[in-house]
Amino acid sequence: MTDQIPLNPDFRQDVTASFSKQGMMQTLKAALTDVEAGTVTIAAPIGAETSQQDGFAHAGMLWSIGDSAAGYATLTLMGAEERVLTVEMKINLLSPAVGDRITAVGRVIRFGRNLCTSAAEIYAHGPKGTKHVATMIGTTTRLRPE
Amino acid sequence: MTDQIPLNPDFRQDVTASFSKQGMMQTLKAALTDVEAGTVTIAAPIGAETSQQDGFAHAGMLWSIGDSAAGYATLTLMGAEERVLTVEMKINLLSPAVGDRITAVGRVIRFGRNLCTSAAEIYAHGPKGTKHVATMIGTTTRLRPE
Amino acid sequence: MTDQIPLNPDFRQDVTASFSKQGMMQTLKAALTDVEAGTVTIAAPIGAETSQQDGFAHAGMLWSIGDSAAGYATLTLMGAEERVLTVEMKINLLSPAVGDRITAVGRVIRFGRNLCTSAAEIYAHGPKGTKHVATMIGTTTRLRPE
Amino acid sequence: MTDQIPLNPDFRQDVTASFSKQGMMQTLKAALTDVEAGTVTIAAPIGAETSQQDGFAHAGMLWSIGDSAAGYATLTLMGAEERVLTVEMKINLLSPAVGDRITAVGRVIRFGRNLCTSAAEIYAHGPKGTKHVATMIGTTTRLRPE
Repeated sequence: MTDQIPLNPDFRQDVTASFSKQGMMQTLKAALTDVEAGTVTIAAPIGAETSQQDGFAHAGMLWSIGDSAAGYATLTLMGAEERVLTVEMKINLLSPAVGDRITAVGRVIRFGRNLCTSAAEIYAHGPKGTKHVATMIGTTTRLRPE
Repeated sequence: MTDQIPLNPDFRQDVTASFSKQGMMQTLKAALTDVEAGTVTIAAPIGAETSQQDGFAHAGMLWSIGDSAAGYATLTLMGAEERVLTVEMKINLLSPAVGDRITAVGRVIRFGRNLCTSAAEIYAHGPKGTKHVATMIGTTTRLRPE
Repeated sequence: MTDQIPLNPDFRQDVTASFSKQGMMQTLKAALTDVEAGTVTIAAPIGAETSQQDGFAHAGMLWSIGDSAAGYATLTLMGAEERVLTVEMKINLLSPAVGDRITAVGRVIRFGRNLCTSAAEIYAHGPKGTKHVATMIGTTTRLRPE
Repeated sequence: MTDQIPLNPDFRQDVTASFSKQGMMQTLKAALTDVEAGTVTIAAPIGAETSQQDGFAHAGMLWSIGDSAAGYATLTLMGAEERVLTVEMKINLLSPAVGDRITAVGRVIRFGRNLCTSAAEIYAHGPKGTKHVATMIGTTTRLRPE
C-alpha cells in the first residue's frame, strides 16, 4: 500500500463527481460508500439484472465495480487536473457471488509518476455472512492535460 | 485454436438458451450474433448507460461482453449437461472504445478435460470505422453434474 | 489467506524434497528459507547471471522464484500423493530489482478441491534496505494419481 | 499486429547487442533466432538445468524466454535511444513443455506513445513434433533518456 499524500485536497468531492458521471455505475445501481486517500469502496446489489446464466452475479458486474474501485483509489492520490485510465486488469474468481450485494474495496499498491498498480477485493454479503468472492489487480495510467 | 468437435450437436440452441438467461447481457443490451464450434460473437451498443466518466464505454462493459463471448465459445464444445465457469480473465485495453457499438469475438485456445483457455478480441465500430479496442485471455472450467 | 489444515503432516520435508528436484531453482541459486502451512519463502541472489540488459534482475528470475513460492505454498496444504501445477500466473512489476538478493513470499488465497489461487510478493534486499519489487497472482491445480 | 515502421534502421544489431547483455538469457542458453520489425523469436534448450520437480521445463524458463521475445519485439519498433521495460506480463500454460527445446515468438499488438502491448507464443519441439505450450500477453513501457 502506498503512503503517498493526495496531491488534490478536494479529492473526495472530485472522486464523487467523477463517479456520478459513470453511466455504467448507475446502470449497475452502484454507490460510492467510502473514499479515503489511496482506498475507495463501492457497493452494488446482486440481482436478476446483473446475473449470469446460473443466477449468480455475472463476473462482469464484479469486474466493473472492482475496476472502478481500483481506479478511483488511484485517482484519490492524483492532482486535480489529472484523469485515470485502466491499462489492464485481471480478476481471479474465488467463489460464486451469492447474496444481496457486493462491495469492492480498491487500494493503490504503487503510485508512480505515470504508471500505477492498484488492486480490489470483492466481497459478497448475504444472510449467510460475507464471502471473499474475487481479487483483482491491474495497471492504471495518469493522464495530464497536454 | 482448437480443432475439437463439439460434444453436443445442439450447441447452437443451448448456447442461445443459456445466453438469454444472463440478466447482465440484457442489461447491457447485448445480442448473440454468431455461434460456431469454438467461436462466439456478441454485439452491444455503446451509450450513456454503460459509459465511464469521460464518455467512453466503461471497460467493465467490454470485459462483460468479452467474458461471455470467451465463455460461450468454450461452451460450444462441451457436452449438453456441462456448464462453464470463468476462473480468471484479464483484459488489456488498447484504445478508448468510441463509436456506436462493440463486438466481442470469443475463441477457444485450449479445450482441456477440466480446464480450458479462451480469448476474446473486442472491436469498436462507428462512423470512422472499426478499431481493435481490447484483448482478453483467461481460464474457464467445465462443470459436470455430480 | 486460507485457514486450511495441511492434509499431509510431512509437508515440510515433502516440499523440501520437491524443491531440490527443480533444476531451475538450482540454476538460479535459490534456497527455500521458510515452509509453513499455506506460505513458503524462497531467496535467490541478484547477479550478472540473471540480469536483464540494464543490469537489473531479469523479470524472469523474479517470476520463476515467485511462481515456485506460490506453487509450494499451495503444496503445503495438499495430500502427500498430490502434485501442483501452475495454470496461469501474472506478475506486476513495481520497481527495478536492485540489490544483493530477492525473496519471494508465496501464500494461498483460495484452496479449492481442484483449483487454487495463490500469490507471491517479491522483495529486493540491498545496502539501501528492502523494496517491494513485484506482486504475482495466479491459478494452480491439484493433480492426484489416476 | 502493428504496422508501425521501425524508428531505428539499425534495430537488428541493436536488439542483438541488447540481448547479448542479458545474463539471464545466457544462463538459459537462449539464442535470438529471428529479429523482424514487430516480431522476435528466441530459442532455448529444455534440460535438467531448467526443469521443475516433475522433469518438465519450469514455467519460469518459458516465461523468461517469452518475456524477452515480447519485449524485444517492442524494441524493434523504438527509437535508437529508447529502452524497453516490462510493466506486467501474464502466462497461460497450455500443456507441459516436453521435448528438446522451446521457441518463443514475440509480437507487438499495440505500439503506443508510452505504453505498448505485446504477446508471445511458446512452442516445445521434440521427436514427437511441435506443441503450443503457453501463451503470454503483457504491457511494456518505452523509456527515453531524460
